[in-house]
Amino acid sequence: MITSPDNTQLKTIRKLHDARWRRKLDLFVAEGEDLVEAAEAAGWEPEELLVAGEDVEPDLLDEVSALGSGTRVIGVYRRRFSEPGGELSVYLHEVHDPGNVGTVIRTAHALCDGPVTLGPDCADPFSAKAVRASMGSQFARPPARAGFDQLSGTRVALDSRAEESLAEVSLPAVLCLGGERTGLPDEVLHAAETRARIPLREDGPESLNVAAAAAIGLHRIASHA
Amino acid sequence: MITSPDNTQLKTIRKLHDARWRRKLDLFVAEGEDLVEAAEAAGWEPEELLVAGEDVEPDLLDEVSALGSGTRVIGVYRRRFSEPGGELSVYLHEVHDPGNVGTVIRTAHALCDGPVTLGPDCADPFSAKAVRASMGSQFARPPARAGFDQLSGTRVALDSRAEESLAEVSLPAVLCLGGERTGLPDEVLHAAETRARIPLREDGPESLNVAAAAAIGLHRIASHA
Repeated sequence: MITSPDNTQLKTIRKLHDARWRRKLDLFVAEGEDLVEAAEAAGWEPEELLVAGEDVEPDLLDEVSALGSGTRVIGVYRRRFSEPGGELSVYLHEVHDPGNVGTVIRTAHALCDGPVTLGPDCADPFSAKAVRASMGSQFARPPARAGFDQLSGTRVALDSRAEESLAEVSLPAVLCLGGERTGLPDEVLHAAETRARIPLREDGPESLNVAAAAAIGLHRIASHA
Repeated sequence: MITSPDNTQLKTIRKLHDARWRRKLDLFVAEGEDLVEAAEAAGWEPEELLVAGEDVEPDLLDEVSALGSGTRVIGVYRRRFSEPGGELSVYLHEVHDPGNVGTVIRTAHALCDGPVTLGPDCADPFSAKAVRASMGSQFARPPARAGFDQLSGTRVALDSRAEESLAEVSLPAVLCLGGERTGLPDEVLHAAETRARIPLREDGPESLNVAAAAAIGLHRIASHA
């Protein structure tokens, strides 16, 4: 039973709040029973597993929780990445919000067979917020890392200024989305095989939240395919 | 120029981090230029407007920011609610996450003509997180408050166990969604005119994030109507 805040495992968990340490150690943390069970269901062995009251004093585990409200169990896992691919997948470009990245990982796991490929300047999918938002889909379908040029299949760029609305798309396809403010950069829009928009009301906002747009886009392509 | 942290306006802003004070004073806070501009565009007059360097010392404004990273402008507004209605709208039941509530408010503003009606046990739509996630749609389309029984039109209950998938729905309609873990309670499912599911992959998660599900549901009903 760990009884000291200076314990090495607790120190490692604290370090893993920081993206640089996650990269350096090639590890990340999943907090809470649901996520640890999702990891187990997907066949992931934890590098460390700390259960409050069994392996560690509950207060000490709460203290290293990144999610604020404390937790009963924390697992430490080695990072894994997939390769881009599948009949239908998602590519994110400069999506900075970790909650959005995690939610898109969950949505893709529910609606398509390929991974979420992270292009430049995306939030770390292994942060506590992203892992929490993925609700365990992170383990079943780890994200990929690649540039837009490395994707194969029909690259469908979502763009609110496009004239065509999202209709039938031939598979294999990759739904490509940009960050909240900027959308996809011009070079991606020009290189994409298809540009399309999701029809929005004229009296409404200029754009959807990126995770909402990914959900609609994947649903639409998957149900027509 | 405000130079003291004990200033009354700053004290009010600090109080408004707390849901009880928001209810008591009937006020809420919007942080950042985008939201303050969205309020102005929707014709809302702020009760207070504090601009860093003009009305208040920048450090003092940062100190009362609820969003952590500091801000250049904070507006205080009187709360407003809409009435349920419209050809197509959303009803949320026990949706606890303020980011999800705010994102659904934005999505509804983009995809349907009616408001988001908040049923029992939903997150406060006037918290800093919810207001931020709404990206200003809060001002253009304030949420409503009502019970499920008070809704009119075809009430479409999203339920992952339903046999029918979401197809053509006759308007006026209300898309009804429950909280992350529990979904809609049985009494709502039984009373709804229609129960439907969004088709998910069998090898994927059991459910979508509620804001992702709302986006797909609204898009689907709006494009068939």
